[in-house]
Amino acid sequence: MMKTLIKNGTVVNSTGSAPADVLIDGETIAAVLAPGSTLLGFDIENNVDTVIDAAGKYVIPGGIDAHTHMQMPFGGTEASDTFETGTRAAAHGGTTSIVDFVVQYAGENVLDQYALWHDKARSNCAIDYGFHQILSDVQDSSLTAMDELVKEGVSSFKLFMAYKGVFLSDDGQIVKAMQRAADNGSMIMMHAENGSVIDLLVQQSLAAGNTSPYYHGITRPWQAEEEATHRAIMLANLTGAPLYVVHVSAKQAVEQIAMARDNGQNVFGETCPQYLYLSLEDQLGASSEEWGDFEGAKWVCSTPLRSKHEGHQHHMWQSLRTNDIQMVSTDHCPFCMKGQKDMGLGNFAKIPNGIGSVEHRMDLLYQGVVDKKISLERWVEVTSTTPARMFGMYGKKGVLQPGADGDVVIYDPNGHTSIGVGKTHHMNMDYSAWEGYEIDGHVDTVLSRGKVIVDDNQYLGSKGDGQYVPRGLSQYLI
Amino acid sequence: MMKTLIKNGTVVNSTGSAPADVLIDGETIAAVLAPGSTLLGFDIENNVDTVIDAAGKYVIPGGIDAHTHMQMPFGGTEASDTFETGTRAAAHGGTTSIVDFVVQYAGENVLDQYALWHDKARSNCAIDYGFHQILSDVQDSSLTAMDELVKEGVSSFKLFMAYKGVFLSDDGQIVKAMQRAADNGSMIMMHAENGSVIDLLVQQSLAAGNTSPYYHGITRPWQAEEEATHRAIMLANLTGAPLYVVHVSAKQAVEQIAMARDNGQNVFGETCPQYLYLSLEDQLGASSEEWGDFEGAKWVCSTPLRSKHEGHQHHMWQSLRTNDIQMVSTDHCPFCMKGQKDMGLGNFAKIPNGIGSVEHRMDLLYQGVVDKKISLERWVEVTSTTPARMFGMYGKKGVLQPGADGDVVIYDPNGHTSIGVGKTHHMNMDYSAWEGYEIDGHVDTVLSRGKVIVDDNQYLGSKGDGQYVPRGLSQYLI
Amino acid sequence: MMKTLIKNGTVVNSTGSAPADVLIDGETIAAVLAPGSTLLGFDIENNVDTVIDAAGKYVIPGGIDAHTHMQMPFGGTEASDTFETGTRAAAHGGTTSIVDFVVQYAGENVLDQYALWHDKARSNCAIDYGFHQILSDVQDSSLTAMDELVKEGVSSFKLFMAYKGVFLSDDGQIVKAMQRAADNGSMIMMHAENGSVIDLLVQQSLAAGNTSPYYHGITRPWQAEEEATHRAIMLANLTGAPLYVVHVSAKQAVEQIAMARDNGQNVFGETCPQYLYLSLEDQLGASSEEWGDFEGAKWVCSTPLRSKHEGHQHHMWQSLRTNDIQMVSTDHCPFCMKGQKDMGLGNFAKIPNGIGSVEHRMDLLYQGVVDKKISLERWVEVTSTTPARMFGMYGKKGVLQPGADGDVVIYDPNGHTSIGVGKTHHMNMDYSAWEGYEIDGHVDTVLSRGKVIVDDNQYLGSKGDGQYVPRGLSQYLI
Amino acid sequence: MMKTLIKNGTVVNSTGSAPADVLIDGETIAAVLAPGSTLLGFDIENNVDTVIDAAGKYVIPGGIDAHTHMQMPFGGTEASDTFETGTRAAAHGGTTSIVDFVVQYAGENVLDQYALWHDKARSNCAIDYGFHQILSDVQDSSLTAMDELVKEGVSSFKLFMAYKGVFLSDDGQIVKAMQRAADNGSMIMMHAENGSVIDLLVQQSLAAGNTSPYYHGITRPWQAEEEATHRAIMLANLTGAPLYVVHVSAKQAVEQIAMARDNGQNVFGETCPQYLYLSLEDQLGASSEEWGDFEGAKWVCSTPLRSKHEGHQHHMWQSLRTNDIQMVSTDHCPFCMKGQKDMGLGNFAKIPNGIGSVEHRMDLLYQGVVDKKISLERWVEVTSTTPARMFGMYGKKGVLQPGADGDVVIYDPNGHTSIGVGKTHHMNMDYSAWEGYEIDGHVDTVLSRGKVIVDDNQYLGSKGDGQYVPRGLSQYLI
Repeated sequence: MMKTLIKNGTVVNSTGSAPADVLIDGETIAAVLAPGSTLLGFDIENNVDTVIDAAGKYVIPGGIDAHTHMQMPFGGTEASDTFETGTRAAAHGGTTSIVDFVVQYAGENVLDQYALWHDKARSNCAIDYGFHQILSDVQDSSLTAMDELVKEGVSSFKLFMAYKGVFLSDDGQIVKAMQRAADNGSMIMMHAENGSVIDLLVQQSLAAGNTSPYYHGITRPWQAEEEATHRAIMLANLTGAPLYVVHVSAKQAVEQIAMARDNGQNVFGETCPQYLYLSLEDQLGASSEEWGDFEGAKWVCSTPLRSKHEGHQHHMWQSLRTNDIQMVSTDHCPFCMKGQKDMGLGNFAKIPNGIGSVEHRMDLLYQGVVDKKISLERWVEVTSTTPARMFGMYGKKGVLQPGADGDVVIYDPNGHTSIGVGKTHHMNMDYSAWEGYEIDGHVDTVLSRGKVIVDDNQYLGSKGDGQYVPRGLSQYLI
Repeated sequence: MMKTLIKNGTVVNSTGSAPADVLIDGETIAAVLAPGSTLLGFDIENNVDTVIDAAGKYVIPGGIDAHTHMQMPFGGTEASDTFETGTRAAAHGGTTSIVDFVVQYAGENVLDQYALWHDKARSNCAIDYGFHQILSDVQDSSLTAMDELVKEGVSSFKLFMAYKGVFLSDDGQIVKAMQRAADNGSMIMMHAENGSVIDLLVQQSLAAGNTSPYYHGITRPWQAEEEATHRAIMLANLTGAPLYVVHVSAKQAVEQIAMARDNGQNVFGETCPQYLYLSLEDQLGASSEEWGDFEGAKWVCSTPLRSKHEGHQHHMWQSLRTNDIQMVSTDHCPFCMKGQKDMGLGNFAKIPNGIGSVEHRMDLLYQGVVDKKISLERWVEVTSTTPARMFGMYGKKGVLQPGADGDVVIYDPNGHTSIGVGKTHHMNMDYSAWEGYEIDGHVDTVLSRGKVIVDDNQYLGSKGDGQYVPRGLSQYLI
Repeated sequence: MMKTLIKNGTVVNSTGSAPADVLIDGETIAAVLAPGSTLLGFDIENNVDTVIDAAGKYVIPGGIDAHTHMQMPFGGTEASDTFETGTRAAAHGGTTSIVDFVVQYAGENVLDQYALWHDKARSNCAIDYGFHQILSDVQDSSLTAMDELVKEGVSSFKLFMAYKGVFLSDDGQIVKAMQRAADNGSMIMMHAENGSVIDLLVQQSLAAGNTSPYYHGITRPWQAEEEATHRAIMLANLTGAPLYVVHVSAKQAVEQIAMARDNGQNVFGETCPQYLYLSLEDQLGASSEEWGDFEGAKWVCSTPLRSKHEGHQHHMWQSLRTNDIQMVSTDHCPFCMKGQKDMGLGNFAKIPNGIGSVEHRMDLLYQGVVDKKISLERWVEVTSTTPARMFGMYGKKGVLQPGADGDVVIYDPNGHTSIGVGKTHHMNMDYSAWEGYEIDGHVDTVLSRGKVIVDDNQYLGSKGDGQYVPRGLSQYLI
Repeated sequence: MMKTLIKNGTVVNSTGSAPADVLIDGETIAAVLAPGSTLLGFDIENNVDTVIDAAGKYVIPGGIDAHTHMQMPFGGTEASDTFETGTRAAAHGGTTSIVDFVVQYAGENVLDQYALWHDKARSNCAIDYGFHQILSDVQDSSLTAMDELVKEGVSSFKLFMAYKGVFLSDDGQIVKAMQRAADNGSMIMMHAENGSVIDLLVQQSLAAGNTSPYYHGITRPWQAEEEATHRAIMLANLTGAPLYVVHVSAKQAVEQIAMARDNGQNVFGETCPQYLYLSLEDQLGASSEEWGDFEGAKWVCSTPLRSKHEGHQHHMWQSLRTNDIQMVSTDHCPFCMKGQKDMGLGNFAKIPNGIGSVEHRMDLLYQGVVDKKISLERWVEVTSTTPARMFGMYGKKGVLQPGADGDVVIYDPNGHTSIGVGKTHHMNMDYSAWEGYEIDGHVDTVLSRGKVIVDDNQYLGSKGDGQYVPRGLSQYLI
């Protein structure tokens, strides 16, 4: 078994940072040690296979992106990143685990779908992966499957309050799933937007001739998100289920989450880089020779980008700092402009919803450290430690401690990263939603279970390195 | 230098727990290692001086009590624990650091008092100690002293909104100190009770013949705490100073803190074991052959115990769980019944205010884990990690990681602790406020900077083991 | 034309009370005068046909019950009061106007139903009546009908968030109706309960064998009301429509309304006597020789009675006082136990929902004055003035001023009213929901448009006295 | 006794408006009648002395300005309007009653001051006047005086949380006064600004060389108002006293009031025209040839004007509409620029605080009706009816009903008023704070107790027309 010593770095965890060496023995961290490469006179450096000098750099637990949709079938097409391409891109960006979503559309059988998703991912991933399970209709067999899946290491179930006829569960179905979650200890994840209202506004917008991508955001107003968030919280209150609201973008939704938490309810919120940096006005102003105002399709995602005039971004960073929002995932769901997004030319409602960010999350959030919006420790917390604790991977993931997997990122605060398609991006997309973003830091080296898979921008791993991670229950539920 | 291996235990830190060994080399943790007592074939166990087997036990960072008043002069007497007796009692209870308060009464010189307190503590303490500085009148020289003291490792300044003529600063004085704190990065701590109102109610109560200890609480209603808490928050909002509210007891005060935090303000709250377990009705009902209804004097502290009929305790535990309250200190300020508390026979206003708990905090909070009110990790967080981060000791204290001081407690979840004067208590008090409390756990062994100072209820340390800990700025201020 | 002088009484209006005489000339109030029965030497008393001496009594504008369901088809039966019997009972209780609901079930044509309801009411009523329009499915023709109906004097439209397949509109349909209301100035009324959740809970309750009337309340928890109230508010926020929430029973729903109002939204709330006096526990404890525990069916209404242990009643009275709740209607929807309520023997879900109170509202609320829960003026405001202003009848109804209809009640604060079937009740019901309630006041004389229709408990009017009242827009919308 | 008929107008009261005639017999309203000038065939018009044709105009109860400071000694000078000049100016503006403040400075005897103020006002006023009593130090004799004064018709007592050494009461003193008010049913009025903080900021501003009028506002930040408002509310909560917060200017203070009211507390708020129209930036930008930037002194008042960038004005109009703020007074306290305001040249802290608006309140608020910020009825409510009800004058003032004083204003919605010193203003000031304001309406005729005192901009009354109005308790306290 390969033995690796990472020496001279600053180990950053979610509660603080300190100079320390990290010793990995095989796939697992064997020790975190005072710097110096010796222990009680024993020369560690000369008893390992590999020594990585991290002087001047941060040594952090590998990133965990708890919200990705690799090769997800949606709207007549499929997300453009496969488990292979998507996880490799993630690795490049310092993310060493993803939790992807098994999709069950109405009428399908949950356990069948679960098996199918294993088939898709198995032997294809560059990094470790777990699964959440999407439930659409909540059949009696789905409730039984929930108990089964918890045993399988799938301890979180996502429901949708939007996308009628595709994903949407009605409130009674949501309550049924929540009752089961309250019983078996699993987490309910919620896409919280009022689909009935949105469907109407879309129809009215199209009828009025407002068909360009900008109207995607206009027809998904913050009220639709705030409302659904409150509704989900109240259903959780009724049933006693824990609730995790995905991709929160509106400050009013955050306020609902904060109130529920102040009242002692187990409610959590995730945001995504796009809601921290991008705005509806970016989309409105977007134009290109190639696409005209359809350029805005690049940023069509749901929940949508919010107006910069309403204070959402400021509130979101603040909430990330104050822990009213607990963590940051990407909702990685990439589609190419050609052949995919362009299905919505002349009708924004047909644009596949999604942005690809799995590669850039660690960098984009680190920029928040540079910009003094969050602390260095909070960066690690919201991108790695909390995801691990929230979704039952702690001990193995999200922390640098003995017994944990050797998932480590060496991050250079003096490095630099320029984001953009002609440059460093490895996602299977023909554009970047983040074109032109400059980051004052750089992912130097990435280890997955003790193996260096990225170094100096080179991918050194192999397809199938990544393994399935069965997960336990959330650590936040007392 | 003594080398110690703690093996086979479960290391608990604030984010999770895992089996691991801890190696201490001299005063400092050298490594945290995967269990097994070897590293890369090197036999650690046979290269250390001492091996402690922690099988079946928790290995945690030593407790930090950030609010104590050893031998504090107050009301014509002095708190009955000296730095010697108080810190020894603390050690027995698994607390390895205290932060005590240097007192500056109106008219006194801050730096003189600071020097005086060093004289009191030096060579007397069983465990490490730091200082907060109390400011009463805020003289111009006090403002200068604030900058000096930050350099000395005193990065927190306590002000009082009560005790007129003794401690009270008026709002203008508070603002002056807050402006300086905003400038030099230090923390403002606040005793938040409206003294002017309380003084009137006390005077009216005495005039009405209501003189027994119970009326201490009656004359310090929750409104007086809520009001002062809000006022302190608003003054902090005005000046940009961070604010830490001490000994929060009323749920309405917690709500003010929660609102401020939701608004993004750097506001923090501390509670104490007495507000989690005891109530005003305990005091009302207290009676003994020796003392009659003056028995209630045992629990005269400020802020006072709150009525059990108003939901404060439930809300306080909940807030501790949801992080609306961040940490637990004791406000240890013991007085004996004979010769001290009895100064207030016939006039509750003359009872020295204070309860002694420095020895029992770790146990009492662990009971909250047993009772499923907080998680095991949260126990460590609120008693050790957060105090260290809040008050600039992180890296040295509050964590088990290489480079940190070897302050370690081995806690036995299968042990048992019966609290009471005739049994195990080591504080210099002639009674216990916690008589009869039974704890489903036990502090087995306590190490301070690598030295075992308590083992199997025996004190093995020496007077003067404890050293002064200069502190940096709070880690929570981005 | 008949001329009537009401002399020596205390005229009470919503802003204050004062001694004054009221002169009615024909159907209309001609003057409100200083007491003395003369004006500038002109002897009024001897120039009128009738003189009513109100010495020692209150002279108030006739009550307006803005929420009744006479002979409403529901659940396979029909509310037991016809327009004839119901309005006669109302008259006995000092109510001189009702606003009843035209029902449009899904698939029916709105304007056809409107015509049908006119047929039902015409020539049958003892007192004046207006109509709200219920919309179930919101067809395109329904939107057109909304504009038509505003011209017809129907300026308020009620939607349901419960009763799927019967009344329920989905959120998109609600938004459509709200958009139209925002446009034409009319009011949206909302039955705010989450029907999807309730339907599930009912099904689960029945499946578990919990079939008695008590479970009606258990399966309609406050969360279902709070949630729907918030949702309705947010949809109103989105569309700009004014919103009036009917029969609010949960304090949490009131809090949502209060927050919306504090934010400047045009949101209003109505409660009913049952939520001010009765509780779920009354229903639980109800039992009789005749009905056993099915006795509880007498109080099956929706929203349901709330638990007395949760503080709803206290909060409701308080909110009535502070104007977080603006008015009190009855939701009069009576069903007899025999042949109607008993359809739900063995299945509470089949019990027709409704309580009959149209006769007792003025008395029950006056008791709140006696009990010092609201002021005398507030009594008139919440039972008469505000309903008139809220629903566009002001100037004609809800006030004693020249030009207003001569709808006057002479109320004796020294009288007494015992409520119960064997005594004074005139509603077409075989039981009373208010059996045994004793009121410290009495409706002595009731005039409708200048005609005495009730005096000394005798009905002196005729079927068909009551006329249709076309209504304008709400007065509260600037 | 003079008999007057006001015919053909639209009578506007706080709940609605309707065509009606008003008959005044002597000093008192004898009747409100249906239009037509006859009653039961009796020809009223030919039996009165005077007929006023109000066709096309509003007939409203005379305005009540419940917050004036005529000839108040302050800061070494005296407010420039005497009771004579100030009340005459008020009359011109449609205000027929004022409630002025008796001043008791620390050390003075309350009842002596009360007598002194009667001497100042007696025989000098153009309109009726009542008194509030200011309490500075709250001596035991002051508490006794409170009971005496309630009998004298002074049912409201004002305390100050600012102006140390002049007006300020400490919190204990406030509680004492509140306890007495809770006992005798009177109202506590509060100047809610944190004086201790303001004094410090003023001192720091002057020391920094920031001495111009603009810094008056900068040194009285919204936090100082919000804080004091919350504190006053909490002291009222503790004691059970009703609380009326004067001259609210900060939206955050309004939010505190709204929260207290939602919680059922008897808390009320008044704002003033300056907070509805003027902003700190007006003051910052003010400059003139004569005064340079000292021009800003014209708008130095306390609470100060607020920044237009913080949303206070919008929130204040909204709160006036939603009844989170209940009424509008002027805080009329005029000082001339020459010889008074100019005492503060080079030191804003020496500028006498105050703005003169007693003449313009009715017009300025009417403009809010024109601008659709409040309804016509709400205009009458906030300027007349609520002041009368709030301060125990209802029945005599604030309403047009039989028995009420003949205080009537005929207001022409088609008239126009240009405000400014060279034009129509009658206050004893050498400038106008409202120079250049144009109002789309006009005070045509003003009657005080049945006598026309202003008509067509001419003053027709006599010094001493106005009488003292003893007041009862507030009508809002159930």
